[in-house]
Amino acid sequence: MDTAGMEHSVSWISSNSDELILRSWISSRMDIAELHRAGDDIKEMMKSEGYYSEPSKYEAELSDGNITFAYSYPIKAFEKFLGYYDRENRIAFNPSISMRTDFSFCLAACRYRKNGKTDTVVLDGYADNKYYKKAKFALDKFRSEYSINGSFDFYIKRYRRYQKAKGLSESSAVAAAVSRALISNVFGDDAAKDDIFVSRYARLVSGSGTRAAHDGISMWLSYPGMDSRDCVAFKVGKSNENLNYGVFPKYSDVATDNAHSIAVNSVFYGTWVSEKFSNVKRLISDHFDINDLLKIGENDMLRLNSILMSGGLIIQTPDSLRILKEILKFKSKNEGFYFTADTGPSIAIFSFDRSLIDEFRENVNDEYIEGSYDFKGYNNRMRDFIREAQEYFTQTPGEDEEDRL
Amino acid sequence: MDTAGMEHSVSWISSNSDELILRSWISSRMDIAELHRAGDDIKEMMKSEGYYSEPSKYEAELSDGNITFAYSYPIKAFEKFLGYYDRENRIAFNPSISMRTDFSFCLAACRYRKNGKTDTVVLDGYADNKYYKKAKFALDKFRSEYSINGSFDFYIKRYRRYQKAKGLSESSAVAAAVSRALISNVFGDDAAKDDIFVSRYARLVSGSGTRAAHDGISMWLSYPGMDSRDCVAFKVGKSNENLNYGVFPKYSDVATDNAHSIAVNSVFYGTWVSEKFSNVKRLISDHFDINDLLKIGENDMLRLNSILMSGGLIIQTPDSLRILKEILKFKSKNEGFYFTADTGPSIAIFSFDRSLIDEFRENVNDEYIEGSYDFKGYNNRMRDFIREAQEYFTQTPGEDEEDRL
Repeated sequence: MDTAGMEHSVSWISSNSDELILRSWISSRMDIAELHRAGDDIKEMMKSEGYYSEPSKYEAELSDGNITFAYSYPIKAFEKFLGYYDRENRIAFNPSISMRTDFSFCLAACRYRKNGKTDTVVLDGYADNKYYKKAKFALDKFRSEYSINGSFDFYIKRYRRYQKAKGLSESSAVAAAVSRALISNVFGDDAAKDDIFVSRYARLVSGSGTRAAHDGISMWLSYPGMDSRDCVAFKVGKSNENLNYGVFPKYSDVATDNAHSIAVNSVFYGTWVSEKFSNVKRLISDHFDINDLLKIGENDMLRLNSILMSGGLIIQTPDSLRILKEILKFKSKNEGFYFTADTGPSIAIFSFDRSLIDEFRENVNDEYIEGSYDFKGYNNRMRDFIREAQEYFTQTPGEDEEDRL
Repeated sequence: MDTAGMEHSVSWISSNSDELILRSWISSRMDIAELHRAGDDIKEMMKSEGYYSEPSKYEAELSDGNITFAYSYPIKAFEKFLGYYDRENRIAFNPSISMRTDFSFCLAACRYRKNGKTDTVVLDGYADNKYYKKAKFALDKFRSEYSINGSFDFYIKRYRRYQKAKGLSESSAVAAAVSRALISNVFGDDAAKDDIFVSRYARLVSGSGTRAAHDGISMWLSYPGMDSRDCVAFKVGKSNENLNYGVFPKYSDVATDNAHSIAVNSVFYGTWVSEKFSNVKRLISDHFDINDLLKIGENDMLRLNSILMSGGLIIQTPDSLRILKEILKFKSKNEGFYFTADTGPSIAIFSFDRSLIDEFRENVNDEYIEGSYDFKGYNNRMRDFIREAQEYFTQTPGEDEEDRL
């Protein structure tokens, strides 16, 4: 889409006035047309390097009462994203890249009700209005795209290897699991195996969910003014199983729901976003070199924290700051030891040299979850989960059946 | 100086190749000519609002063995600065603004030795090479400007209202006190009373020292490509004695000597600096409105921390982060309560409403120094200090006298 198309594309962005005021404020600080051109360049590079594929199409085959299941693991981002260019269509300002981790997993069950009027969502046993609104936003878009009537019930559960933590991208796993369960329900198994297709609808629940639809290393292609059907994640590399990784799970009660808007409002946001496009171009030409990714992961953690701090949102805690300072001290004496964190105080560490991780952990005896590349753990919980979900669906007749009772 | 002059002026910047590499890297990220124009505009505004005065001239009247004394109090910055455009001449990239505080004071004694070959510096009883090199840099420039031969001995002492803390601008008070003692020694009392003249040479010791040469609120005029004789601080307002202020002194062992270069290397530095010029223009037209200054002080603390964090330098400590989070929580429920900090973890708070400060301190019982506008405390220590300094000077004959012994 050339820049002329940009003007056209800008018009279909939601007419919600706050969004347009924010949009004009952003355009005054960023060269949106330049980001659009850079995004198009990246798309072309992804094509020529064989990472990109055209948006696929599937035919809906709906059947009343059909129940489907899916799982997903969370990601840990290297090139991160905060801030939507087009909030309505969940199009982020910049492409982002991450790897799959096994710090937790999410199981999702989806039931279709042909005559249903209201979707229902239960997450970890709770039916919170916040979950319902998030699901409804995504499902309404999905239904309108495929002219589907009826409603969907979701029974979702997260399985953590830690008690409580923030910044471990649990929402990415939820988004990918519910999207895959939905797609399996509506389009069948082939579509559900198409990670790119799954990522398109995971996006409507959580941006990083796009990447959680893939194993290994993946990139969510997203930039201002793009065609939203292209706004999906592509796999760009296998997990690098020689890379030791783990995380210090930390919790914080600081709400980060407004992190996206705080970031976009930061005076530094334009610089932060535009640097990412040059990083991504370099990464594509180097076939997503893992060492480059690890350095970007460190840099971008510091910059993400800087962006939010400049807007008054401090996401580290005294506890996580202590660990971060230990990491920086250790790094000043050791090469090949990396760290990153997303929008929370849980800090992940990486090294190809296992002894470096062990040596570091001698000074920091906080709770530590050792990461692995075994993404089969969900199997042990699937049987119980299926039983629980079916129990839930039977207890939740949904209004259409209530009318007939 | 018009932009044509910019090219000329750029040439006299030191030929030190690192500096030129950094300079070209900076110019690629910032519109230096634009900053120069904005600086010139600010200078004109300062003139028309009556804050500016032409650089004054004094005649040196040296007398061998002459000893002079001076004092100074530290500042707390609102519009802050990090990063020198011209390190050799200590010209900062942007103007900066602060108020005098009484968290500590510094006393300085200066002796001139006509045949002396080596300057000597004792600070708090220590003769550290770091102090000597800093003094020599400034004194060599001073001597060459006024074709002065001989050397200077400095006996300097800091008097704190806390045990140990970082980020309370002690270096600003040292710079202003030694500059005033030097100027009193070489040019006599009139020159020593000329705070603007004192600020010019305090600059060569520490940038914020320019502002510590003034009482009340002052602005250091500094911008790329300016005439260095204009690179001084001007008083821009009296202390606002209705403003209650104080500080939680905190220490950190994180070295911040490289804070200037880390800041300049930050990807966000250009944006940070250019925003300051628009702030300063607004402030001049509003006659340095204290509420605007207080808001800038908060914003700029967060941005300064962001800039350094984006370069991997984290200046907060787990302890100071705890207080900062308490402050942000308290601010979300209370108007008229402000905070700021400079390049360290000591956080200052301000309010015109004394009860807000008392209420806040009910949740935070860390050591707290209540600020005042009584800048006479130094008098009680002057007599002992004079005796100590004279004792030091008599024990330190200096090599010229050694030759004659």
